[in-house]
Amino acid sequence: MKKLNIGLIGYGFMGRTHSNAFRQVNKFFQLGYEPVLKAVCARDEAKVKAFAQNWGYETYETDWRKLIERADIDLIDIATPNNMHAEIALAAAKAGKMILCEKPLSMDGKQGAAMVKAIEKAGVPNMVWYNYRRVPAVTMAKQLIDEGRLGRIFHYRAKFLQDWTISKDLPQGGAALWRLDVKAAGSGVTGDLLAHCIDTALWLNGSIGTVSAMTETFIKERKHNLTGKVEKVGIDDACAFLARFDNGSLATFESTRYARGHKALYTFEINGEHASIAWDLHDLHRLQYFDHRDESKLRGWRSIHVTDGDQPYMKNWWVPGLQIGYEHTFVHQVADFIAGLDAQTPAHPDFRDALETQYVCDAVLKSAGTGRWEKVRKLK
Amino acid sequence: MKKLNIGLIGYGFMGRTHSNAFRQVNKFFQLGYEPVLKAVCARDEAKVKAFAQNWGYETYETDWRKLIERADIDLIDIATPNNMHAEIALAAAKAGKMILCEKPLSMDGKQGAAMVKAIEKAGVPNMVWYNYRRVPAVTMAKQLIDEGRLGRIFHYRAKFLQDWTISKDLPQGGAALWRLDVKAAGSGVTGDLLAHCIDTALWLNGSIGTVSAMTETFIKERKHNLTGKVEKVGIDDACAFLARFDNGSLATFESTRYARGHKALYTFEINGEHASIAWDLHDLHRLQYFDHRDESKLRGWRSIHVTDGDQPYMKNWWVPGLQIGYEHTFVHQVADFIAGLDAQTPAHPDFRDALETQYVCDAVLKSAGTGRWEKVRKLK
Amino acid sequence: MKKLNIGLIGYGFMGRTHSNAFRQVNKFFQLGYEPVLKAVCARDEAKVKAFAQNWGYETYETDWRKLIERADIDLIDIATPNNMHAEIALAAAKAGKMILCEKPLSMDGKQGAAMVKAIEKAGVPNMVWYNYRRVPAVTMAKQLIDEGRLGRIFHYRAKFLQDWTISKDLPQGGAALWRLDVKAAGSGVTGDLLAHCIDTALWLNGSIGTVSAMTETFIKERKHNLTGKVEKVGIDDACAFLARFDNGSLATFESTRYARGHKALYTFEINGEHASIAWDLHDLHRLQYFDHRDESKLRGWRSIHVTDGDQPYMKNWWVPGLQIGYEHTFVHQVADFIAGLDAQTPAHPDFRDALETQYVCDAVLKSAGTGRWEKVRKLK
Amino acid sequence: MKKLNIGLIGYGFMGRTHSNAFRQVNKFFQLGYEPVLKAVCARDEAKVKAFAQNWGYETYETDWRKLIERADIDLIDIATPNNMHAEIALAAAKAGKMILCEKPLSMDGKQGAAMVKAIEKAGVPNMVWYNYRRVPAVTMAKQLIDEGRLGRIFHYRAKFLQDWTISKDLPQGGAALWRLDVKAAGSGVTGDLLAHCIDTALWLNGSIGTVSAMTETFIKERKHNLTGKVEKVGIDDACAFLARFDNGSLATFESTRYARGHKALYTFEINGEHASIAWDLHDLHRLQYFDHRDESKLRGWRSIHVTDGDQPYMKNWWVPGLQIGYEHTFVHQVADFIAGLDAQTPAHPDFRDALETQYVCDAVLKSAGTGRWEKVRKLK
Repeated sequence: MKKLNIGLIGYGFMGRTHSNAFRQVNKFFQLGYEPVLKAVCARDEAKVKAFAQNWGYETYETDWRKLIERADIDLIDIATPNNMHAEIALAAAKAGKMILCEKPLSMDGKQGAAMVKAIEKAGVPNMVWYNYRRVPAVTMAKQLIDEGRLGRIFHYRAKFLQDWTISKDLPQGGAALWRLDVKAAGSGVTGDLLAHCIDTALWLNGSIGTVSAMTETFIKERKHNLTGKVEKVGIDDACAFLARFDNGSLATFESTRYARGHKALYTFEINGEHASIAWDLHDLHRLQYFDHRDESKLRGWRSIHVTDGDQPYMKNWWVPGLQIGYEHTFVHQVADFIAGLDAQTPAHPDFRDALETQYVCDAVLKSAGTGRWEKVRKLK
Repeated sequence: MKKLNIGLIGYGFMGRTHSNAFRQVNKFFQLGYEPVLKAVCARDEAKVKAFAQNWGYETYETDWRKLIERADIDLIDIATPNNMHAEIALAAAKAGKMILCEKPLSMDGKQGAAMVKAIEKAGVPNMVWYNYRRVPAVTMAKQLIDEGRLGRIFHYRAKFLQDWTISKDLPQGGAALWRLDVKAAGSGVTGDLLAHCIDTALWLNGSIGTVSAMTETFIKERKHNLTGKVEKVGIDDACAFLARFDNGSLATFESTRYARGHKALYTFEINGEHASIAWDLHDLHRLQYFDHRDESKLRGWRSIHVTDGDQPYMKNWWVPGLQIGYEHTFVHQVADFIAGLDAQTPAHPDFRDALETQYVCDAVLKSAGTGRWEKVRKLK
Repeated sequence: MKKLNIGLIGYGFMGRTHSNAFRQVNKFFQLGYEPVLKAVCARDEAKVKAFAQNWGYETYETDWRKLIERADIDLIDIATPNNMHAEIALAAAKAGKMILCEKPLSMDGKQGAAMVKAIEKAGVPNMVWYNYRRVPAVTMAKQLIDEGRLGRIFHYRAKFLQDWTISKDLPQGGAALWRLDVKAAGSGVTGDLLAHCIDTALWLNGSIGTVSAMTETFIKERKHNLTGKVEKVGIDDACAFLARFDNGSLATFESTRYARGHKALYTFEINGEHASIAWDLHDLHRLQYFDHRDESKLRGWRSIHVTDGDQPYMKNWWVPGLQIGYEHTFVHQVADFIAGLDAQTPAHPDFRDALETQYVCDAVLKSAGTGRWEKVRKLK
Repeated sequence: MKKLNIGLIGYGFMGRTHSNAFRQVNKFFQLGYEPVLKAVCARDEAKVKAFAQNWGYETYETDWRKLIERADIDLIDIATPNNMHAEIALAAAKAGKMILCEKPLSMDGKQGAAMVKAIEKAGVPNMVWYNYRRVPAVTMAKQLIDEGRLGRIFHYRAKFLQDWTISKDLPQGGAALWRLDVKAAGSGVTGDLLAHCIDTALWLNGSIGTVSAMTETFIKERKHNLTGKVEKVGIDDACAFLARFDNGSLATFESTRYARGHKALYTFEINGEHASIAWDLHDLHRLQYFDHRDESKLRGWRSIHVTDGDQPYMKNWWVPGLQIGYEHTFVHQVADFIAGLDAQTPAHPDFRDALETQYVCDAVLKSAGTGRWEKVRKLK
């Protein structure tokens, strides 16, 4: 089998999910390439060494530029905080490496557009880790929509609710809490959580035309881990927006880290003329489906346990009734990326797709500032 | 409209549900008779007077024999503790009254057989208040089975779980707690709760051939409200049994008042060759339905909100989505009883149907004693 | 017991729910007054006569002005289409009658303000039928909030989803479909459905400061039942809005009649610092409750079956585990109204409360037009 | 790190789950040993070679006796059909190998007792793959019981429902369908599914004293894959039994492959004096918990999403809200087995524990034949 030599940058939560995916994919999917854990890179040598050892990376680096220069690396996988994505991606593109990039693509649309330009010029395979597209139930939602089962779409609604930052004693910044530091993250829940909701929505329901948004930062100041000082919190703790899709459907989106009782409750629902679909991440192996064409008195929401061989990805795992979990979405994404290499039909979402999500995020944050409906910039 | 003069005996919980049903039925159903609350009867004059006043009974009695003698009474409704059913029913039959009787029909099958004999000899309309048949979702289950949608039946399982007698400080006997007194109740959960499960099961799935049962009395002695003394508890606190239906399907039944967390959780599930049905009393307006003939990848249990006009009884109430509750099952039963009078096609379950349930209870209690499988006596 | 002579105007769906409530309330609640079904009024004599007969109204009228003039009427209950509320209420107030009025109070805030002025000048007891406050689970939510269990509130979200107007063949207007006719209804889902959501929200979470809204009419023209011609549809089929409450919490509200699979799915969720609450109308007897102060590893959403004697209203009905339904909310409202008369502490929502809801609706519809955030007019 | 050289026998469904567990365990758990995929063994050379290649086994064998003789193998993992377990285990014990064995331990109790005797004489570490003990929610149930939270136990009920053998066209026997062939499997659902339920029950609720059972074979004859002829079906398609635990609690157990709508629905519920617990395999990451000591009006079943760091095993995986699946239970079992080696406190269930389950199965099958209550043989 052909080898695909991986160079991973970053070893946090996402470094682990990606590493696991690279290791697992060939055991469950028949593919033309086998990822090889060639090198992992991070600044803290002791930690990166331990990470390499644990996951079986052959080598490690402490300077990402060196990693990119290495001839034995085919693919750069960017799992750093958001503020490093662009610089690394530009360098990797220049070096002709394939690139996988954690979401969100960039700090904003302008930066993202530059990344897309560079990567398309370089002509290298690329993908962004919006992993939730590859939850089997979500992939099946896409199939059902593409098969025309829902008919005209009237409504889309999505939420991503968490509750882990409610304590005012939680600091911001540093390795563990960079998502609370606007300098590292770019934004709060908008880029972290809503970006997922938007990526799925664009995939399932097409482009968004206009948005009206509000954001809030409930806790205004937190101690900063890097400076040791109490500093203003620059991120959005919560964001909600109304949207109109280009297909005429209406949408509501909401995200927060202040919804007591919800750990990572990403939910969406789509209402079409004939049928509706709903899903939530807390029971990710189930899809809710309602079909108005069912016999009248027997109509009801079906709770579909998406674990059968004729449902997306599931023939590669166990047997009906036995569920998979969160980490498998990353395995699926690697499988599809490699299958795309094999077939020369690139997997999605690529950088260009992810830029569209970025443009929606930009419009959302702009609208939250202006108090007006804002148009979403179109991809050229 | 023709009048149907009601004489109610007993004013407890069931006296209330019946009275409400008589008052409500003509407001929601088009029928040929109107129940008239003619008289209520109980021994405690002050209390029966207050009850009559509250519910609008024209008169009251303190001796049930007098009530039965009254020429202005068409129908005797028995809502007393179980040990009074037979004597009253026999007298009412002799007097040529229509009879409605609370469940269970009798203290045992022998007594019940005598009641059936008397009532059939008298030729009076009769019915037993196994009200759960008239939950719209349960009635719909019956329709689906009768339409042949399930195919061959493999399994039936039913439970009725409560948790209100766990405290050892709860006394037994008297007006409030006669259900814990074997002399008044005949048995514990078997006659009180399993009788409901059995009635539904016989209706939905046909006759039961044999049973193997166990019973338990977790708290062996309780203070008796009538004697003031600590006395042995004679009832079964819990009862579970295996059964084989005549149609070849297997069943498990269980009931207890020691299932922490369940107030009145009556549930049943039926598994057929093509489809399955499940229902529970805690969300009584929903029916769960699974149909294997649905397209493979879209198969799932449908949660049907039984509130539409094409679903049983619901066109008589409100609009889709707006649920009815427990009390309505009694209204439906009166409506069907009266419609049966109108059409001269008697409503069910009548005394004879209820006797079959009694025979199953007898076999269950016998098996719990002998430790063997016991045959259920057949109706002649 | 003192008599409360009712004069009902309108005999549609709401005429039935109110009539049932007046008939039932004294059977289940101990009160100082007994409603007497004195007269019902509507223009169609044959139909109003049949309605009177069915529900037991002593008399009927075909001219509402005559009804108001009658000395034997204590209370005028307005159950007409929205465009008649104001005129009738003003006349009834002038005549010194108590007034119950269906929701929404009025066609808009200006009209509503005139009604409040008149009724307060007349000093007559008054109430608006926002019945969902009296679902026991919803009343319990209010108790929990008032007890301070949630702490600071961060988020409120409410939806009211239906799917009954999706067919383009459905006409508008006339007795059955006046809710689709802007002249009779004033607005579409905003006044019909969102008004319920807003009433509950103001009650549970205080006043709303500003809103940003969008509305849509998916089907632009429908045949009009009164003219027989295809006419422009003037109502909003769907409406969603963002809101900021005065207490600093953020909200999303949405309503539509184009959400396939939902019959009358009114849901709300409130996220507080310490606890969260969720409820939905399709299983109205349940309250979902999450308390962060529970022991860490045992935290979870509790599904509370609100049927116990220590839960709101439930000691007046049956026994634990046995659910009530939709119609009971009207019984509770009458019970509270009468209890308020007894105690001279008026029940809510009164006309003034309902005016605040109207002001929110006005701001929502205005914002949908201007595309800007709009302030909600404050009650004086 | 010390190496633990694995020799796997069998490459079916369980061969895959075990192989995956051996590969994954050190990436997520800090342990003193690292499993090494040394060799896999099966009779079909082409297939075993492919399996070895896919999963990274260094070598393969086609004769299990050779595998056992190999000095470079520390541990024999038995993943064959049931009828091979004993012979292999006895040989492996004799060779002084550690032994992991798929469940059920043996064809019957007699055979199992011989295995226990041999393995205990050999003094080798051993474990049986009753993997469901290691679902985090199930492990947490065990913790809650051990902490005394439930108080006296009244009821235990378990079911394992499937629907994959309903078609009469399904053959029996051979590599894919040995579970339907009594010669290979020993029994049907009793050994395959109820054995899981019994293992969990013994662990959570102690020993079972007596049982009363029934079994059924719905489809009496099926074509046999090995002979090509239609042959009598010797296995039980369904089995249900009543049981009394030594602690005085009552139980119902049921299993079938004829429950339309259920893929692998293993559920259990335990009712104690103070609290109750329920779980099901179709949403394995959730535990339902009811605590009567909660404030009265706020009592309800809590749906606990077992994905937090303070819940069993979960600190080793991702972050709160992100669920794991079926395969992880095997990883946990390997982790605990190795941790037991490290600490010299053997992990459970070992062969002796699994023998007790076998004795219950024996009593169940005996009772199904005799129609009487049968005592469960006690471990010596």
